[in-house]
Formats: sequence, structure tokens, C-alpha cells
Amino acid sequence: MPPNGRKTSAMSGSNDALDHLKATFAEISAINNAIAVLGWDQNTYMPPGGAAGRAEDLAALAKLAHERLTSRRTGDLLKAAQDHAASLDPASDDASLVRVAQRDYDREVKVPDALVAEIARTSVLAESVWRDARSRNDYPAFAPWVEKTVDLNRRLCECVGYPEQPFDALVDYTEPGMTTNAVRAVFDELRPHLVDLVGKITPQVDNVDDTVLHRQYDEATQERIGREVVARFGYDFNRGRLDRTTHPFETAFNRDDVRITTRYDSRFLSMALMGTMHEAGHGMYEQGISPALAQTPLTGGVSSGMHESQSRLWENFVGRGMPFWRFFYPTLQAAFLDSLGDVEMHQFYRAINKVCPSLIRVEADEVTYCLHIMFRFDLEIALLDGSLAVNDTPAAWNEKVRGYLGITPPNDTVGILQDIHWTTGLGGFQGYALGNIIAAQLWESAHQAHPDLPEQFERGEFGALLHWLNTNIHQHGRKFLPADLLQRATGSALSPQPYVRYLRRKYGEIYSL
Amino acid sequence: MPPNGRKTSAMSGSNDALDHLKATFAEISAINNAIAVLGWDQNTYMPPGGAAGRAEDLAALAKLAHERLTSRRTGDLLKAAQDHAASLDPASDDASLVRVAQRDYDREVKVPDALVAEIARTSVLAESVWRDARSRNDYPAFAPWVEKTVDLNRRLCECVGYPEQPFDALVDYTEPGMTTNAVRAVFDELRPHLVDLVGKITPQVDNVDDTVLHRQYDEATQERIGREVVARFGYDFNRGRLDRTTHPFETAFNRDDVRITTRYDSRFLSMALMGTMHEAGHGMYEQGISPALAQTPLTGGVSSGMHESQSRLWENFVGRGMPFWRFFYPTLQAAFLDSLGDVEMHQFYRAINKVCPSLIRVEADEVTYCLHIMFRFDLEIALLDGSLAVNDTPAAWNEKVRGYLGITPPNDTVGILQDIHWTTGLGGFQGYALGNIIAAQLWESAHQAHPDLPEQFERGEFGALLHWLNTNIHQHGRKFLPADLLQRATGSALSPQPYVRYLRRKYGEIYSL
Repeated sequence: MPPNGRKTSAMSGSNDALDHLKATFAEISAINNAIAVLGWDQNTYMPPGGAAGRAEDLAALAKLAHERLTSRRTGDLLKAAQDHAASLDPASDDASLVRVAQRDYDREVKVPDALVAEIARTSVLAESVWRDARSRNDYPAFAPWVEKTVDLNRRLCECVGYPEQPFDALVDYTEPGMTTNAVRAVFDELRPHLVDLVGKITPQVDNVDDTVLHRQYDEATQERIGREVVARFGYDFNRGRLDRTTHPFETAFNRDDVRITTRYDSRFLSMALMGTMHEAGHGMYEQGISPALAQTPLTGGVSSGMHESQSRLWENFVGRGMPFWRFFYPTLQAAFLDSLGDVEMHQFYRAINKVCPSLIRVEADEVTYCLHIMFRFDLEIALLDGSLAVNDTPAAWNEKVRGYLGITPPNDTVGILQDIHWTTGLGGFQGYALGNIIAAQLWESAHQAHPDLPEQFERGEFGALLHWLNTNIHQHGRKFLPADLLQRATGSALSPQPYVRYLRRKYGEIYSL
Repeated sequence: MPPNGRKTSAMSGSNDALDHLKATFAEISAINNAIAVLGWDQNTYMPPGGAAGRAEDLAALAKLAHERLTSRRTGDLLKAAQDHAASLDPASDDASLVRVAQRDYDREVKVPDALVAEIARTSVLAESVWRDARSRNDYPAFAPWVEKTVDLNRRLCECVGYPEQPFDALVDYTEPGMTTNAVRAVFDELRPHLVDLVGKITPQVDNVDDTVLHRQYDEATQERIGREVVARFGYDFNRGRLDRTTHPFETAFNRDDVRITTRYDSRFLSMALMGTMHEAGHGMYEQGISPALAQTPLTGGVSSGMHESQSRLWENFVGRGMPFWRFFYPTLQAAFLDSLGDVEMHQFYRAINKVCPSLIRVEADEVTYCLHIMFRFDLEIALLDGSLAVNDTPAAWNEKVRGYLGITPPNDTVGILQDIHWTTGLGGFQGYALGNIIAAQLWESAHQAHPDLPEQFERGEFGALLHWLNTNIHQHGRKFLPADLLQRATGSALSPQPYVRYLRRKYGEIYSL
């Protein structure tokens, strides 16, 4: 094509290679969406017998998507689209598409299709083993699958490469642009503050009584209340669902079909209530992604940490905050009059904010939560580099729980088997701690932009916060690296200080520190 | 490859081309299974907003599967595998694979990928319009989608070709090897018998009272009973599910993951009860397919008629039969003591077998059911050949209902809008009538093989029947053409006479004809 032909094309904003790329990515996107639907189904409604067939299907689909992404044709199209992309604003959708797709391509082209298929297959099979092992407190039954997962992850890391250590490769999958040492530095900055807070709170842990949360709470009413709360936050049920699963999660097939799940316990109110807010936070992120990014690699959340910032923000900064309960407590109390009729709002607020070292990560309070993550992070690195054997991991887990939290898991079901993550691979935990940290940074910035957020919450209005998040985070999908997106949204780099400030202020007040 | 090289390969039972074919079909099968999961999800749990994205994903996946099936490589592999296949027993799995895959290939290679994608996309979008139009009794809103569906079907027929008339192409999709005229001949043979029976029964229609079916029946109890019944028939819930949908259906992703749905009405007992048996009949077909056929084009039911024979056999021949109720009525009565306590078994048996021309096909009795199909068949042919305009179809529908059944639909919701089928294409109805006909043929043969089937049913034992169906029908999947499979199972060609005998005997007794 003559230069001026190309110029015309660039001027008109279209480009042949880019158009072909988009068509290719629309196809890859359809396969990936199908994979996500199959994954959701596997966790919600698939009959037990379906696991083996599903494993084969998911392996084949993962391989197919990977083949398309890493094909010579995709590589050539990316190359051909670079000039056009360079002529555009780097923040434009098209320039971002080429940049992010090239990054994905460069990593994935190094991974054999067969390894991708094997990881997908193993994940389905491991999950059904985990589910069973967890319910029977039988880590040895699950151990061979952890072994296999570790081995597959090692091979993956060697394929994609890493700047300093193999675990970097896994970190880069969930936190693009970050390294193991960068995560560790943030954790090292945060840890002493948490240890200090826990140390100060522990002696007076009984000053807050949360037994009211363990009264009788009808599950159907819990579900109704959960739906009411998250609908008011802005989770759109016309473009979303809420189902029940063993392990709560969120998944999205596109911005208009987002699914969240939760679990109920009639003797524990906050698990489902706060869990639903948490997953809805994830869901609103996906529902807020720009429709212009649909069917491209730019759709979806940018990182595990950014995703988790959304869930933790709604669950904790909003959902465990006083302003929200000033608005909503009368409704909750009316729904559970038998159990909450004699509980006044401040007492309830203190109960849901009780700090107490506990065994289950997803039910941990805001102060101890990140400690759960930090020791998982250590264990995963040790598993990957071989310094910790799979069979020694339950003992190491329990040792870490003792060291970090001062308690000991009575069995593996509430210890090493509690989380689903090692069915899908290593390297999935650090995002949960980064999420708290980022949430605090976003919270400060949103608050600066809208100083009256607390008053809005007291009136049951959450639109300004959601709009701020939509504008600054959600709509951009994967366009920018997480660090750049955070910088654009807050003007700052990643820092645990806002989270430390938030915790010290809130829990200083609750525990009169 | 030298001839003796090929011979060795044939002797060892393996063949390179065949192995590559199987790998290709495993991939196509994964895509098709994903399409099926997405379809199930669309009908059960997809939020309303998800339709547009789902349509795009399904279009892309359908195109992808079609591309793989019709690629030059698949064509070459098929060609290369023919010699090997010719050296095998034609009834072997491998010879059947090559034969059936070649048949699929020869048809599909004539269809452009883009048309396949457009049909898939249209189907999802049309369905959400239909759902809405049906609930609002608004045929004009749905009409443009019928128009589009008719147009796409015309293009499809012209692509794949036909022996006598365009509709043959559609018949061949659902009833491989059959033509429009062959279907018509069977219908022409059956119709006078049905008209005669209806004519004799109509004057004494009030001799059977089915008002007891319209008493109060708690939906949760209905569901529990439905599950109990079909589990006893042999529907395996470890490899299957039962959910609720607007329009009941069955779908399978593999023999170990089969899904059925039903709908409940607390004032109409038999809809869900018989509907659940019906869908479980479909489900048991899929659950019984040989595992050796997994991930090949041979898995799945062989035709719409054969599939429907399984559902109608369990729903009607078993589920509306006296032996079954001798066994099960006490359980049903105990579950609904308020509504059935004063109803003795014979009265209930007569109620669920009341013959009365009615508007809704899926709730029609055994005698009038096929008449519903016959007029839909006529209308579809007329729509396809253009002799009937889409806008004139509601009037034509109502005219046909008057002509065939002597009643008039009061609105389109219970008329032309009742069935989901025209969202997915034309040519889907004849199988329902063929199903009744085939069911009667299988019923006679199974009965000959096991003369004590009625006594077994009275004891709640259904294993011998299921085993006979597994052995003679289910396990073979798509290996043989429907006519051949029927011949193998019953020693006879397709014939409505067993169905006529069955109806005359059963309803002669109930109505003392």
C-alpha cells in the first residue's frame, strides 16, 4: 500500500491491520467468554459427574484461544498495526488495544498451547478433588493436585520468563508490571502497623461483642436484604445475577452479564451480608467498563489488586462504615426483629467491626485480613521455588497462622484447605492485600472530590461514589497498567499509608486506642 | 505411505488420518458443548441484559465450529481416512465416525460461515423478543424476527440443496435421510385414525373429569415428586440437573452432564409432573450414549424423532399408563392429601388421560397431540416456500387450529406465540409427531422382549425397559441413520400402525368405544 494510502487510512481513524486484529480478538473474546460461562456453571450448577467432560472442554477451549492469540497471523497483524497505533493518542482505545494486546502476545507466545490446555484441565479436576477433600478434612487427597499445580506453574514461569525470580511471572499475570520484591516491599511497609494495631487491640478484644451476629437469621431474608443493599449501591440486576456457591466469587462474560455468588449461614449474619457487598463491588467494576472495549483484550478488570480494591471498598469502607448503617440499620433491624430488636445501631456497628485474629481469610476483620495474605504469599513463593515441599505445607501453614495470628487451626478444613485458589494455580493471593491498600487510596481521592460522601451515604445515596469509580477506574478496563491507572485516579503511586491512616483512625475510635 | 504401511496401520486398528480427525472433532465438540452450555444458561439464568453479548459470542463460536468442520484440512483428513474406514465393519465406531462426519461435512461445506454466525446470532436475539412478545400477546413485535428466520432458513436450504423441495433440507437436519414427502406420507396415514378417534371421543368428552388436576398443588412438593419419579425411571442426577424455565427443554454437554428443565403451576398438577418425565426421557437418551463416542460427531441423539420417542415413551407409554400409577399413586396421593385424598386411582388415571382438543401443544393429550404438529408442519412449509406471508400467519394459525381441533385461540399468546421454535428456525416440529410413532414401535418391541414389563412397573422397576432402550437406541448415538437404527431395534420400518393400535386400545377402553 502506498504511504499516502496508509495516511488516509490513519486519518480516517481506521486501519486494515487494526480492523483484522479487532475481528481476531472478537473471536478470542467469544472463546474466553465461553470459558468464563463454563467456569461459572462449574461452580454453581454443574452436576458432579460433569467434571471430567468439562475439564476436556475447557482444556480444548483454552488451547484454542491461546492458539488464536499466539498465531503468526496475530503477531503479523500486531506488527502491522504498530505504525498506526503510534500515530494515535496513547490513551486512546485503539492505541491501548495494540499496546496491551502486544504485551499479552509477547508473554503468551512463549507458552506452549499444550501447557495452557493442561493448566485448564488440571484446574477443573483439582477443584472437584479440593471440594471433596475440604469437606472430609483430607489434605493428603488434595496434595497430588497441589503438586501438579506447582509443577505446571513452575513450567509456566520458565516459559514466560521473569526479571528477578520465577514468582515474578505469576505476579505479572495478576498485577501487570509488578514484581515479587515490589509486593514484598509494600507488605514490609504495612506489616509493622498491622502488628502494632493487633497488639494494642488484642488485650481488649472482649470490649467489642459480636455474638449478636450469631443469632438466628433466616437465609431467605438474608438474601433479600443482600439484594436490596447491593442494588442500592448500584449493582445492576438487569445485567447481573446473584447465586449461591461453596466459595463466593464474581465473574463477568461482558459488562452486561455479570455474576456474583455468596453463601449463607443462618447463624452468622455478616458472612453473606458483607460477602454480597464484596462480590457486588467486583461486579460493579465489570458493569462499569466502557462498552467501546467490548470484545477486545481491554475489557475486564486490569489487575487482581484493582479488582479487589473495588470489592473491599464497598464491603468495608462503605459497608462497615457508620454512615451506611445510619441509613440502613433500621431496615436490617426491621427484617430481623427477633435477633436485632434489642441491638442498637452503635452496638451493631461495633460488632461488625470487631477485630479478632481468626482462621478464615474471607471472614477476617479489616486489621488482620492482610496478615492472612502475607503468609500465603510467603508459602506460595516457597512452594514455587521448591524450598517448601507440598507434603510439608499443612504444617508450614499452621506454623504461619500461629506466627502471624497467634492461633492454631484445629484442622485443615479451616486451615490450608479453606481456599479454592490452589486448584487454579499459585500467585493469586497478593491482590487481596493490594486491594485493601488501593481501596484506601481511592477512598481518600473520592472523598476529596466529594467531601459530602458520608452525608450522601446517610441518605442512602451511593451514586456519586460509583460515578467517581466508574470515571476514574471502571471504564478504562485494561487500557492502562495498574500503576498508571492508580496514578491517573489518585495522583499517587501505590502506598499503604492511606490504609494505615484509615485503620488507625477507625479502630483507634472503636477501641479507644 | 507405502500400501503395506497403510495395511499395518489398518490392522493395528489405528490410522493417522483418523487420529487427526478425532483430535479435530474433539476440538469442534468442545466448541459445540460450550455453545450448548451458553444456550442452557441463556434459557435458565442469563440476566436480561446479557442477550446482546451472548448473541455475539454464540455467533462467533458457531462460526468457529463451522470453520473447523468445513476446513480444507478436515476435508482432506476425511478423504485420507476413507480407505481405512472401508476396511472396517461398517457398524464399528470408527467406520461410523468417518461416514457420519463425511455426511455432516458434505452438507456443511456448502454453507458459508457467515450464514451460520447470522443464524446463531438471530436465534438469541429473536428469543428475547419472543419471550417478551409472548408475555404481551404482541405478535407484530415478533413478526420481523420470524421474517428474518424464514429468510435465513431459505438461504440455508438453497446452500445445502434438497432432493425435491427446499423444506427437505430442514427435514434432513433433524431427521437425517428423510424428506418432506416421506413425513407427509406418514402423517397422511396417521391423520384419519386420529380424526376418527377424536370424532368418537368428542361427544363423550365429559365422561372423563380432569378437574382434580386443577386443585391446589404446592410447587415445591411437585418438584420433589417429579425428581423422585424420574430418578426411579433411571435419570441420573449425579450426571444431570433439573431447573425451571419458561419453556421446558433438555440439553446435554456430554453423557455425564445432562440438563432438563420444567415449569410449575400450583393449579395444574400434570404440567410439571408429566413434563418432567418427558424431559427426563430425553435426558436418559443422552445419559445412555456410549462413552466411546464422546467428543466425536457420533455423540448426541440421532434425530429429533428418535429423541422425542424417548421423551414420549416415558411421559405417556409409561407415565400415563395404569401399571406405573398402580405403583406410584399412593405416594402421589400421600404427598397431596388435601387435593387427592378423595380421588381414587382409576379416577386419577382417567383424569390424566382425558382427551380434549386444547390450545397448548405441550399439554395436549396423546390423541390430539399429533394434530398440533401436522398443522405446524403445513404452516412451516408454506412460510418457507413463500405461499404464506409472515404477517398472515396468526390468522392462518387460528384457521388451522379451528380446522384440526375445532377450537379457536382467544389470543396469540396461546396461539402462534406459544412455542419457542421459530426463534431457532423452521423445520423443528415434525419430530414431535414422529416421536410418538417411533415410541409405539419401540414400546411394542420392548414389550415383546420383556412381556412382564407391566408387572415390573407395578413394582416400581423400570430398569429392564431402560436397559432395552440403552442397548437398542441410546448407546449408538448418531452412528446409524434413524431409519436404520429403528430397523435394527424393531425389525421394522417407520410405521404409524403401532401408535394407532396403542391409541385405539387405550382410549377405546377409557372411553368404552
